[in-house]
Amino acid sequence: MRKVDPEKHEAKRRQILEAAVACFARKGFHRTSTAEICAEAGMSPGNLFHYFPTKQSIIAAIVEEERRQTADYFEGINPSSDLFAELLDFMDIVLELASDPTYLKLALEIAAEAIRDEEIGNLVAKTDTELQTALNTLLRNAAARGLVDPTLDPADSARWIAALVDGIFSRVAVDPGFSPLEQRPMLRLLITRFLRPGAAPATA
Amino acid sequence: MRKVDPEKHEAKRRQILEAAVACFARKGFHRTSTAEICAEAGMSPGNLFHYFPTKQSIIAAIVEEERRQTADYFEGINPSSDLFAELLDFMDIVLELASDPTYLKLALEIAAEAIRDEEIGNLVAKTDTELQTALNTLLRNAAARGLVDPTLDPADSARWIAALVDGIFSRVAVDPGFSPLEQRPMLRLLITRFLRPGAAPATA
Repeated sequence: MRKVDPEKHEAKRRQILEAAVACFARKGFHRTSTAEICAEAGMSPGNLFHYFPTKQSIIAAIVEEERRQTADYFEGINPSSDLFAELLDFMDIVLELASDPTYLKLALEIAAEAIRDEEIGNLVAKTDTELQTALNTLLRNAAARGLVDPTLDPADSARWIAALVDGIFSRVAVDPGFSPLEQRPMLRLLITRFLRPGAAPATA
Repeated sequence: MRKVDPEKHEAKRRQILEAAVACFARKGFHRTSTAEICAEAGMSPGNLFHYFPTKQSIIAAIVEEERRQTADYFEGINPSSDLFAELLDFMDIVLELASDPTYLKLALEIAAEAIRDEEIGNLVAKTDTELQTALNTLLRNAAARGLVDPTLDPADSARWIAALVDGIFSRVAVDPGFSPLEQRPMLRLLITRFLRPGAAPATA
């Protein structure tokens, strides 16, 4: 049996995922064939199936990658930093991602697939639970340090921050007048007024 | 040629739409056959096609119905009433709809279809533009009467209210811990703090 070089294997895997992301963003998940992903990645179909047995398993890997990146991001936050500023920074990243046409298209494809495919739905729900747990922890710690209104339930606040994240992607999809980066001051005002009602300025 | 009784025609049309809504909510749009819609509506396939040539045209009619109902709702608002209270009432309806499993499933199916089908996408965008125009008008009039912060751009405020509406449906889909009706006080607090920062109480 041939030995698998873990580094080479991982590099090839990433190459396929990147090719798949490009294809899915261009044509959507269902209209993309595995042959097109192979062509984009410059490899043979037999080789592709060695890494991902199905198209579904590729989208599952993309969701898992997303989950890992979000977890890493929140683990990287210094607990003694200004946690409210950290929250606003995270929302900046959301706005930047929603401004990236490839990321946006992929996020919407995954959202649509999550509604229609149970396995993808479960993976997306798992990613979402982790995001909410991270936001909940951040908000609880921020409240304990007087950085946000301590009378708000952090779990519920986290839910509404997550609702805003969802809403941003949905807005970009449906409303050509919604430019995420232009909406940055309004989002900051909204979150500041919500979480720190005393500290918020009257205007953005 | 046989004369068409407009009332009978409309009644039959509504009967089909209700049957289709029940089927789509149960099995999803793509897994529902027109034969199943016929069975649910208690009519023959030939008869169904007389009203709706394709399954796609049924979903288009459902979106159009939604658009009309929303337009009627906002047209029914008395401009001299407490417009901020009217906005909160509208959000209550959104929370109630998001709590209705049939409506929720249908809304998510339509959202997924809007991403993948251009015609449905255009219809959903049209409905959304009308909702935003209605919210924009309501918020502009509310600001003129000192009911909400007049320094906020009403078009942008309308966009974020629409983002919250989207976010509510998305939350229910992905987060089993998100109960729309239980979240009512938090949503009212969020919107009050956002739009009337001076008037908002410290807690829900």
